[in-house]
Amino acid sequence: MKILLITIGDNEDKYLSSGFELYAKRLQHYVSFDTVTIPSQKNKSNSKEAAMQAEAKEIQKKITPADLVILLDEKGKEFSSVEFAKQMQKFMNMPGKRMVFIIGGPFGFASEIKERANQTISLSKMTFNHQMAKLFFLEQLYRAMTILKGEPYHH
Amino acid sequence: MKILLITIGDNEDKYLSSGFELYAKRLQHYVSFDTVTIPSQKNKSNSKEAAMQAEAKEIQKKITPADLVILLDEKGKEFSSVEFAKQMQKFMNMPGKRMVFIIGGPFGFASEIKERANQTISLSKMTFNHQMAKLFFLEQLYRAMTILKGEPYHH
Repeated sequence: MKILLITIGDNEDKYLSSGFELYAKRLQHYVSFDTVTIPSQKNKSNSKEAAMQAEAKEIQKKITPADLVILLDEKGKEFSSVEFAKQMQKFMNMPGKRMVFIIGGPFGFASEIKERANQTISLSKMTFNHQMAKLFFLEQLYRAMTILKGEPYHH
Repeated sequence: MKILLITIGDNEDKYLSSGFELYAKRLQHYVSFDTVTIPSQKNKSNSKEAAMQAEAKEIQKKITPADLVILLDEKGKEFSSVEFAKQMQKFMNMPGKRMVFIIGGPFGFASEIKERANQTISLSKMTFNHQMAKLFFLEQLYRAMTILKGEPYHH
Protein backbone atom coordinates (compact mmCIF):
# COMPACT_ATOMS: atom_id res chain seq x y z
CA MET A 1 0.00 0.00 0.00
CA LYS A 2 1.30 3.43 -0.94
CA ILE A 3 0.36 6.69 0.72
CA LEU A 4 1.47 10.16 -0.37
CA LEU A 5 0.77 13.25 1.72
CA ILE A 6 0.91 16.56 -0.14
CA THR A 7 0.99 19.78 1.87
CA ILE A 8 0.92 23.33 0.58
CA GLY A 9 2.99 25.70 2.61
CA ASP A 10 6.12 27.62 3.24
CA ASN A 11 9.02 27.05 5.61
CA GLU A 12 8.62 24.44 8.27
CA ASP A 13 8.72 25.38 11.92
CA LYS A 14 11.81 23.52 13.08
CA TYR A 15 10.18 22.18 16.21
CA LEU A 16 7.58 20.37 14.14
CA SER A 17 10.09 18.73 11.79
CA SER A 18 11.09 16.20 14.47
CA GLY A 19 7.44 15.29 14.89
CA PHE A 20 6.97 14.85 11.14
CA GLU A 21 10.03 12.58 11.01
CA LEU A 22 8.93 10.57 14.04
CA TYR A 23 5.52 9.71 12.64
CA ALA A 24 6.70 9.25 9.05
CA LYS A 25 9.19 6.68 10.35
CA ARG A 26 6.52 4.92 12.40
CA LEU A 27 4.22 4.80 9.38
CA GLN A 28 6.92 3.11 7.31
CA HIS A 29 6.39 -0.02 9.43
CA TYR A 30 2.92 -0.35 7.95
CA VAL A 31 2.84 1.28 4.53
CA SER A 32 5.04 2.88 1.91
CA PHE A 33 4.69 6.48 3.02
CA ASP A 34 5.97 9.61 1.35
CA THR A 35 5.36 13.32 1.81
CA VAL A 36 5.92 16.32 -0.45
CA THR A 37 5.44 20.07 0.09
CA ILE A 38 4.29 22.43 -2.64
CA PRO A 39 5.31 26.06 -2.00
CA SER A 40 2.37 28.28 -1.15
CA GLN A 41 1.47 30.79 -3.85
CA LYS A 42 -0.12 33.13 -1.30
CA ASN A 43 2.48 35.88 -1.61
CA LYS A 44 3.43 35.24 -5.24
CA SER A 45 0.03 35.59 -6.86
CA ASN A 46 -2.12 38.63 -7.50
CA SER A 47 -5.30 37.11 -6.16
CA LYS A 48 -6.63 34.28 -4.06
CA GLU A 49 -8.02 32.68 -7.21
CA ALA A 50 -4.66 32.91 -9.01
CA ALA A 51 -2.88 31.38 -6.00
CA MET A 52 -5.29 28.45 -5.86
CA GLN A 53 -4.94 27.92 -9.62
CA ALA A 54 -1.13 27.89 -9.41
CA GLU A 55 -1.26 25.46 -6.47
CA ALA A 56 -3.74 23.25 -8.35
CA LYS A 57 -1.31 22.99 -11.28
CA GLU A 58 1.45 21.82 -8.94
CA ILE A 59 -0.87 19.33 -7.23
CA GLN A 60 -1.90 17.86 -10.58
CA LYS A 61 1.75 17.18 -11.43
CA LYS A 62 1.97 14.94 -8.36
CA ILE A 63 -1.12 12.81 -8.91
CA THR A 64 -2.10 10.20 -11.49
CA PRO A 65 -5.60 9.31 -12.75
CA ALA A 66 -5.46 6.02 -10.82
CA ASP A 67 -4.84 7.66 -7.43
CA LEU A 68 -7.43 7.93 -4.69
CA VAL A 69 -7.37 11.63 -3.82
CA ILE A 70 -8.50 12.63 -0.34
CA LEU A 71 -8.61 16.30 0.63
CA LEU A 72 -8.20 17.44 4.23
CA ASP A 73 -10.42 20.44 4.72
CA GLU A 74 -12.34 21.75 7.71
CA LYS A 75 -15.54 21.63 5.62
CA GLY A 76 -15.13 17.88 4.97
CA LYS A 77 -16.66 14.87 6.70
CA GLU A 78 -15.67 14.27 10.30
CA PHE A 79 -14.63 10.83 11.53
CA SER A 80 -13.73 9.37 14.88
CA SER A 81 -10.30 7.69 14.90
CA VAL A 82 -11.93 4.26 14.69
CA GLU A 83 -14.20 5.33 11.82
CA PHE A 84 -11.21 6.80 10.03
CA ALA A 85 -9.30 3.52 10.44
CA LYS A 86 -12.26 1.66 8.89
CA GLN A 87 -12.28 4.13 5.99
CA MET A 88 -8.54 3.53 5.52
CA GLN A 89 -9.22 -0.20 5.38
CA LYS A 90 -11.78 0.35 2.61
CA PHE A 91 -9.23 2.35 0.61
CA MET A 92 -6.56 -0.29 1.20
CA ASN A 93 -8.92 -2.94 -0.15
CA MET A 94 -8.92 -1.23 -3.56
CA PRO A 95 -6.13 -3.04 -5.41
CA GLY A 96 -3.38 -1.02 -7.03
CA LYS A 97 -4.64 2.29 -5.71
CA ARG A 98 -2.29 4.84 -4.15
CA MET A 99 -3.87 7.10 -1.54
CA VAL A 100 -2.97 10.77 -1.95
CA PHE A 101 -3.97 12.99 0.97
CA ILE A 102 -3.74 16.76 0.42
CA ILE A 103 -3.66 19.47 3.09
CA GLY A 104 -4.66 22.72 1.43
CA GLY A 105 -3.16 26.17 1.64
CA PRO A 106 -4.77 29.11 3.46
CA PHE A 107 -7.27 29.66 0.64
CA GLY A 108 -8.44 26.09 0.26
CA PHE A 109 -8.61 24.19 -3.03
CA ALA A 110 -9.36 25.25 -6.59
CA SER A 111 -12.56 23.78 -8.03
CA GLU A 112 -10.74 21.30 -10.30
CA ILE A 113 -9.02 19.77 -7.28
CA LYS A 114 -12.33 19.55 -5.41
CA GLU A 115 -13.87 17.83 -8.43
CA ARG A 116 -10.95 15.39 -8.72
CA ALA A 117 -11.19 14.40 -5.04
CA ASN A 118 -12.66 11.04 -4.08
CA GLN A 119 -13.32 12.24 -0.55
CA THR A 120 -12.93 15.28 1.72
CA ILE A 121 -12.13 14.69 5.37
CA SER A 122 -12.17 17.20 8.22
CA LEU A 123 -9.80 16.79 11.17
CA SER A 124 -11.65 19.44 13.15
CA LYS A 125 -14.24 22.16 12.74
CA MET A 126 -11.55 24.51 13.98
CA THR A 127 -9.02 26.10 11.64
CA PHE A 128 -5.44 25.05 12.31
CA ASN A 129 -2.31 26.16 10.57
CA HIS A 130 -1.30 23.67 7.87
CA GLN A 131 1.82 22.48 9.69
CA MET A 132 -0.12 21.47 12.77
CA ALA A 133 -2.69 19.83 10.55
CA LYS A 134 0.18 17.84 9.04
CA LEU A 135 1.44 16.69 12.44
CA PHE A 136 -2.05 15.74 13.62
CA PHE A 137 -2.81 13.93 10.43
CA LEU A 138 0.44 11.94 10.55
CA GLU A 139 -0.42 10.90 14.10
CA GLN A 140 -3.92 9.99 12.96
CA LEU A 141 -2.63 7.87 10.07
CA TYR A 142 -0.31 6.06 12.47
CA ARG A 143 -3.17 5.63 14.95
CA ALA A 144 -5.36 4.18 12.18
CA MET A 145 -2.66 1.60 11.36
CA THR A 146 -2.38 0.52 15.00
CA ILE A 147 -6.19 0.29 15.25
CA LEU A 148 -6.36 -1.93 12.16
CA LYS A 149 -3.58 -4.16 13.52
CA GLY A 150 -5.17 -4.30 16.98
CA GLU A 151 -2.04 -2.79 18.53
CA PRO A 152 -2.18 -1.05 21.91
CA TYR A 153 -1.34 2.56 20.88
CA HIS A 154 -4.99 3.64 20.57
CA HIS A 155 -6.96 3.46 23.81
CA MET B 1 -8.08 38.06 32.33
CA LYS B 2 -6.46 34.91 33.65
CA ILE B 3 -6.29 31.56 31.90
CA LEU B 4 -4.89 28.35 33.34
CA LEU B 5 -4.41 25.23 31.23
CA ILE B 6 -4.16 21.95 33.15
CA THR B 7 -2.94 18.85 31.33
CA ILE B 8 -2.68 15.34 32.67
CA GLY B 9 0.26 13.45 31.32
CA ASP B 10 3.75 12.17 31.58
CA ASN B 11 6.99 13.36 30.08
CA GLU B 12 6.83 15.88 27.32
CA ASP B 13 8.08 15.05 23.87
CA LYS B 14 10.95 17.50 23.50
CA TYR B 15 10.00 18.56 20.01
CA LEU B 16 6.65 19.79 21.28
CA SER B 17 8.08 21.83 24.17
CA SER B 18 9.27 24.56 21.79
CA GLY B 19 5.77 24.77 20.37
CA PHE B 20 4.24 25.03 23.85
CA GLU B 21 6.67 27.83 24.73
CA LEU B 22 6.06 29.66 21.46
CA TYR B 23 2.30 29.83 21.87
CA ALA B 24 2.37 30.43 25.63
CA LYS B 25 4.60 33.45 24.96
CA ARG B 26 2.29 34.72 22.23
CA LEU B 27 -0.72 34.33 24.53
CA GLN B 28 0.98 36.46 27.20
CA HIS B 29 0.46 39.47 24.94
CA TYR B 30 -3.30 39.13 25.41
CA VAL B 31 -3.97 37.42 28.75
CA SER B 32 -2.27 36.22 31.88
CA PHE B 33 -1.63 32.64 30.83
CA ASP B 34 -0.28 29.76 32.86
CA THR B 35 -0.04 26.01 32.36
CA VAL B 36 0.45 23.13 34.77
CA THR B 37 0.85 19.38 34.24
CA ILE B 38 -0.51 16.78 36.62
CA PRO B 39 1.30 13.44 36.39
CA SER B 40 -0.85 10.72 34.85
CA GLN B 41 -1.92 8.01 37.30
CA LYS B 42 -2.32 5.49 34.50
CA ASN B 43 0.57 3.28 35.57
CA LYS B 44 0.38 3.99 39.29
CA SER B 45 -3.21 2.98 39.97
CA ASN B 46 -4.83 -0.42 40.11
CA SER B 47 -7.76 0.49 37.92
CA LYS B 48 -9.00 3.05 35.44
CA GLU B 49 -11.46 4.29 38.07
CA ALA B 50 -8.70 4.67 40.70
CA ALA B 51 -6.51 6.58 38.22
CA MET B 52 -9.32 8.99 37.36
CA GLN B 53 -10.07 9.50 41.06
CA ALA B 54 -6.43 10.25 41.88
CA GLU B 55 -6.23 12.68 38.94
CA ALA B 56 -9.48 14.34 40.03
CA LYS B 57 -8.02 15.00 43.49
CA GLU B 58 -5.00 16.72 41.93
CA ILE B 59 -7.21 18.75 39.60
CA GLN B 60 -9.35 19.93 42.51
CA LYS B 61 -6.25 21.26 44.28
CA LYS B 62 -5.63 23.57 41.31
CA ILE B 63 -9.11 25.07 40.97
CA THR B 64 -11.20 27.38 43.12
CA PRO B 65 -15.01 27.59 43.38
CA ALA B 66 -14.99 30.89 41.45
CA ASP B 67 -13.19 29.45 38.39
CA LEU B 68 -14.85 28.76 35.07
CA VAL B 69 -13.89 25.14 34.37
CA ILE B 70 -13.85 24.03 30.74
CA LEU B 71 -13.00 20.42 29.88
CA LEU B 72 -11.45 19.45 26.56
CA ASP B 73 -12.86 16.10 25.59
CA GLU B 74 -13.63 14.52 22.23
CA LYS B 75 -17.24 14.00 23.38
CA GLY B 76 -17.73 17.74 24.02
CA LYS B 77 -19.28 20.44 21.87
CA GLU B 78 -17.50 21.31 18.65
CA PHE B 79 -16.85 24.91 17.64
CA SER B 80 -15.39 26.59 14.59
CA SER B 81 -12.46 28.89 15.43
CA VAL B 82 -14.69 31.95 15.12
CA GLU B 83 -17.41 30.41 17.31
CA PHE B 84 -14.75 29.48 19.87
CA ALA B 85 -13.46 33.07 19.87
CA LYS B 86 -17.01 34.30 20.56
CA GLN B 87 -17.33 31.81 23.40
CA MET B 88 -14.03 33.09 24.83
CA GLN B 89 -15.41 36.63 24.67
CA LYS B 90 -18.45 35.54 26.68
CA PHE B 91 -16.20 34.01 29.34
CA MET B 92 -14.01 37.12 29.40
CA ASN B 93 -17.10 39.25 30.01
CA MET B 94 -17.68 37.51 33.35
CA PRO B 95 -15.87 39.77 35.81
CA GLY B 96 -13.31 38.25 38.15
CA LYS B 97 -13.55 34.80 36.63
CA ARG B 98 -10.43 32.77 35.85
CA MET B 99 -10.81 30.30 32.97
CA VAL B 100 -9.39 26.88 33.69
CA PHE B 101 -9.15 24.55 30.69
CA ILE B 102 -8.36 20.90 31.38
CA ILE B 103 -7.08 18.31 28.91
CA GLY B 104 -7.85 14.88 30.35
CA GLY B 105 -5.73 11.78 30.65
CA PRO B 106 -6.22 8.65 28.55
CA PHE B 107 -9.23 7.55 30.61
CA GLY B 108 -11.12 10.85 30.57
CA PHE B 109 -12.50 12.61 33.63
CA ALA B 110 -13.96 11.34 36.91
CA SER B 111 -17.64 12.15 37.40
CA GLU B 112 -16.98 14.88 40.01
CA ILE B 113 -14.84 16.78 37.49
CA LYS B 114 -17.52 16.41 34.81
CA GLU B 115 -20.10 17.73 37.27
CA ARG B 116 -17.88 20.67 38.25
CA ALA B 117 -17.29 21.69 34.62
CA ASN B 118 -19.06 24.73 33.20
CA GLN B 119 -18.54 23.49 29.66
CA THR B 120 -17.00 20.63 27.66
CA ILE B 121 -15.39 21.44 24.34
CA SER B 122 -14.20 19.04 21.65
CA LEU B 123 -11.25 19.95 19.43
CA SER B 124 -11.95 17.05 17.10
CA LYS B 125 -13.98 13.86 16.87
CA MET B 126 -10.66 12.13 16.45
CA THR B 127 -8.59 10.99 19.40
CA PHE B 128 -5.24 12.77 19.69
CA ASN B 129 -2.55 12.16 22.23
CA HIS B 130 -2.78 14.70 25.05
CA GLN B 131 0.42 16.53 24.08
CA MET B 132 -0.79 17.21 20.58
CA ALA B 133 -4.12 18.27 22.00
CA LYS B 134 -2.17 20.75 24.15
CA LEU B 135 -0.32 22.22 21.17
CA PHE B 136 -3.52 22.25 19.11
CA PHE B 137 -5.37 24.03 21.89
CA LEU B 138 -2.64 26.62 22.58
CA GLU B 139 -2.69 27.56 18.92
CA GLN B 140 -6.48 27.77 19.07
CA LEU B 141 -6.43 30.04 22.13
CA TYR B 142 -3.93 32.31 20.38
CA ARG B 143 -6.05 32.25 17.22
CA ALA B 144 -9.14 33.21 19.27
CA MET B 145 -7.30 36.23 20.71
CA THR B 146 -6.27 37.42 17.24
CA ILE B 147 -9.84 36.93 15.97
CA LEU B 148 -11.23 39.01 18.85
CA LYS B 149 -8.66 41.76 18.21
CA GLY B 150 -9.27 41.68 14.45
CA GLU B 151 -5.62 40.83 13.84
CA PRO B 152 -4.53 39.15 10.59
CA TYR B 153 -3.34 35.74 11.92
CA HIS B 154 -6.67 33.99 11.29
CA HIS B 155 -7.72 33.92 7.66
